Amino acid sequence: MVLGLGTGSTAAFVVSKIGELLASGELKDIIGVPTSKRTQEQAALLGIPLSVLDDHPKLDLAIDGADEVDPDLNLVKGRGGALLREKMVEAASDKFVVVVDDSKLVSGLGGSGLAMPVEVVQFCWKYNLIRLQELFKQEGCDAKLRLSDDGKPYVTDNMNYIVDLYFKTAIKDAWAAGKEISAFEGVVEHGLFLDMTTAVIIAGKDGVSVKSK
Amino acid sequence: MVLGLGTGSTAAFVVSKIGELLASGELKDIIGVPTSKRTQEQAALLGIPLSVLDDHPKLDLAIDGADEVDPDLNLVKGRGGALLREKMVEAASDKFVVVVDDSKLVSGLGGSGLAMPVEVVQFCWKYNLIRLQELFKQEGCDAKLRLSDDGKPYVTDNMNYIVDLYFKTAIKDAWAAGKEISAFEGVVEHGLFLDMTTAVIIAGKDGVSVKSK
Repeated sequence: MVLGLGTGSTAAFVVSKIGELLASGELKDIIGVPTSKRTQEQAALLGIPLSVLDDHPKLDLAIDGADEVDPDLNLVKGRGGALLREKMVEAASDKFVVVVDDSKLVSGLGGSGLAMPVEVVQFCWKYNLIRLQELFKQEGCDAKLRLSDDGKPYVTDNMNYIVDLYFKTAIKDAWAAGKEISAFEGVVEHGLFLDMTTAVIIAGKDGVSVKSK
Repeated sequence: MVLGLGTGSTAAFVVSKIGELLASGELKDIIGVPTSKRTQEQAALLGIPLSVLDDHPKLDLAIDGADEVDPDLNLVKGRGGALLREKMVEAASDKFVVVVDDSKLVSGLGGSGLAMPVEVVQFCWKYNLIRLQELFKQEGCDAKLRLSDDGKPYVTDNMNYIVDLYFKTAIKDAWAAGKEISAFEGVVEHGLFLDMTTAVIIAGKDGVSVKSK
C-alpha cells in the first residue's frame, strides 16, 4: 500500500503509530509518501520505507490532520506550513482520511477566526497580501505575512512565503474563493481543501466518531 | 508614468532606448518596474529610476516582447524564463504593448512548435511534467524540463523549474488549457497570456504595423 503521510501535530502521532506497527510486524508492505521535509525525517527515523510522487504518482490512502472541517468535510489546512505538498499528495490519493479533535469542526470555512494560509512567491508578497485582503473585504479579512520565531518571514519547503488570512465571518462561497485566490499571479497554493476528503475521524469528549460522505 | 519593463532580447532594446531618452531629457518622470532580475540590472545600469509592485501596484503601461501572438492578440510568453514576474507586472498595467517581428505571428497558440513554458515548484516536478504531457495528449504534446547551459535544471528568479511544452498542433481552447494547467497543484504560472494585450507592434519586411483590439 502506498500511503500519504501528513504533517502537523496530529499527523505526527499517525506516523509514529505506523512506524510502531511496521516494527512489530502487524503492518507490512507500506510505502510512505511524506508531505513535508519534517515528516520525511520523522518517517525515515522510524524506518518507514519512503517514496515520492515522481515514483509513485498514485496513492491508495493519505492520512492527515486539518485546521478546520466543515459539515461537507471540506477543510482548511496548512497552519503547519506544508499546504502545497499536502495538497499534491492528498489529491493524488484514492482515499483521504482526516484525523481531528472536535474543536476543529466549523459551520463554515474560515469561521474559526484562525489562519487560512496562502502560499505566495517571495517576489512582491506585499502586493499579493493586499490583493488577498481586498478580495475578502466582505468577510472582514485581515492578511498577515507569517513570521518565524526569529521574526523573519517564514519560508516554506518550496522557498515561498505564507500569507495568513484571518476572517471575521466564514467565507461565503469557498469554491469561488479558491478559484479567485488561485487566479492571482504569484499565488502558489491555498489552504482550502475542497471535495478531497473521504472520511473524518473525530475525537471528542464522548469518544471517537467517523463522518464520511 | 509608471512603466513595466519586459524581459528578453526585444524588451532589452526597449529598455535601452528608454534609458537613452531619459539621459537626453526627451523623456521625463518615468518609474520603471522590471519583470526580471536581468532587466532590473540592465535598467539600473542605464540610470532608469526603479520600483516594484509592492510600492507601485498600478502601472500605466508595460512594454514587452512575446514568443507567439495569435489573431486575437493572445500570447505565449516566457521562453526567456521570466513568465511569472512578467505576468504579475503586465496584469497590473493599464495598457500592455507587445513588440515582435512577424515571425512570432501564429494562427493558434502553441502552433509555432516552440516551447510553451510552465513554471512549477521543484518538488516532484516529474510528476507534474507527466500530468502536463497527459493533459495535452490530443495536441501531441512533448513536455521537457528546461535545462541550463551546464545541463542542470534551469531555475527561475522565484527558485522554481520550468517545464516546456512542445505541441504538434495548436492548443484547441487556450482559455480552458490555462485553467486546467493552473488547477494542477505545484504549477506556479503558465506562459499563456490571454486577454491582456492592448496593442502589438509588428516589425516585418515592409516596415512596422500596429494591431490593437
